[in-house]
Amino acid sequence: MRLSLACLAKPILHGYFRSSCSWRVRIAFALKGVEYDQLPVNLIKDGGQQLTEEYKALNPMQQVPAVEIDGITLSQSLAVIQYIDETRPGPHLLPADPKARAQVRMISDLIASGIQPLQNLYVIQKMGAEKMQWSQHFINRGFQALEPILKQTAGKYCVGDEISMADICLVPQVYNAERFKVDMGKYPTIKRLNEALLEIEAFQVSHPSRQPDTPDDLRA
Amino acid sequence: MRLSLACLAKPILHGYFRSSCSWRVRIAFALKGVEYDQLPVNLIKDGGQQLTEEYKALNPMQQVPAVEIDGITLSQSLAVIQYIDETRPGPHLLPADPKARAQVRMISDLIASGIQPLQNLYVIQKMGAEKMQWSQHFINRGFQALEPILKQTAGKYCVGDEISMADICLVPQVYNAERFKVDMGKYPTIKRLNEALLEIEAFQVSHPSRQPDTPDDLRA
Repeated sequence: MRLSLACLAKPILHGYFRSSCSWRVRIAFALKGVEYDQLPVNLIKDGGQQLTEEYKALNPMQQVPAVEIDGITLSQSLAVIQYIDETRPGPHLLPADPKARAQVRMISDLIASGIQPLQNLYVIQKMGAEKMQWSQHFINRGFQALEPILKQTAGKYCVGDEISMADICLVPQVYNAERFKVDMGKYPTIKRLNEALLEIEAFQVSHPSRQPDTPDDLRA
Repeated sequence: MRLSLACLAKPILHGYFRSSCSWRVRIAFALKGVEYDQLPVNLIKDGGQQLTEEYKALNPMQQVPAVEIDGITLSQSLAVIQYIDETRPGPHLLPADPKARAQVRMISDLIASGIQPLQNLYVIQKMGAEKMQWSQHFINRGFQALEPILKQTAGKYCVGDEISMADICLVPQVYNAERFKVDMGKYPTIKRLNEALLEIEAFQVSHPSRQPDTPDDLRA
């Protein structure tokens, strides 16, 4: 059996320290114990390095993250996370039971489709002075739905007592909520889960305050 | 072995004829040959029937679809589709190969997180007179990324020659694009795939023009 060079190479994450979708992927790599290289894409500098022709060839959506892995390039964080989960050993990021898997995906998609896209950089750049109010509105709207769902599904973590993709989505979204000054006191279940998850090393080493491209004044 | 009543019951789809996310679920049920009941939720009438307390208990996000299936209630169409795929016989909606699965999920999420949320009813209701221009902008932005990706992944359908979740996401998104008068001539691959898919019975019987809640003037 011959392994191709592409399969021997470490995955490359093209991301940005503060991008919540990049952070999701970093958590997944850390939980699975996968070594990877980071090539930072600064979303602000030079008018946005994601807008270059070079990066567009990697991810035509001109967003982070993009991941080069096993000879292919993937974008969309949940697709990347599930690919890592299906091809790497280590703890499963989705439970084996189909109903629990569905709940993990429901919570992940509520965040990834129902909240994050509406406070994404390229959207709020269009909102001008209203961007804080707009982002708060859609994060609160999502968290008001997420709170009762998590009350039903959560144990120690979002779905039962095992860490899953839902947790990987939750923590970066709470980080965004705090940036946009959302009052987390209204969401006791989300707050409790976030605090429990931030105790875990994989969530700490992947944190925006500890990345190669974290500016010095934001570094932990 | 005893089957619970919940497992014997037909799934119930709470949806809306013109909702692209409801249509996704209808296509999946049709492809898998699963019989289901529909309970229409009119997103316009009475200020929006999704906003009632009764519906909120079913889906706290107050969006369609919500699906009652096997004793649980699921929202988020891609979570529902993958649950159906993992628990029902019939053609697989995700390929067996991990790389192809990742490409299917990438394309599905590009639509479900990158395009659809930005032209969702509750967002464009906030845009007032600008809603047509706003929707066109974000659909064009997404399709400009999707076109080169599909050029690489597509065979007869979005990923290779088998119908997948990516196709289930594509067709309703093109339907939305046409409603918002996006020029589809700019996207020859998307256009070709959409036309091929609309030839298939599962995409026809699930079409917005043929649902129990389709108004007479929009009925095919």
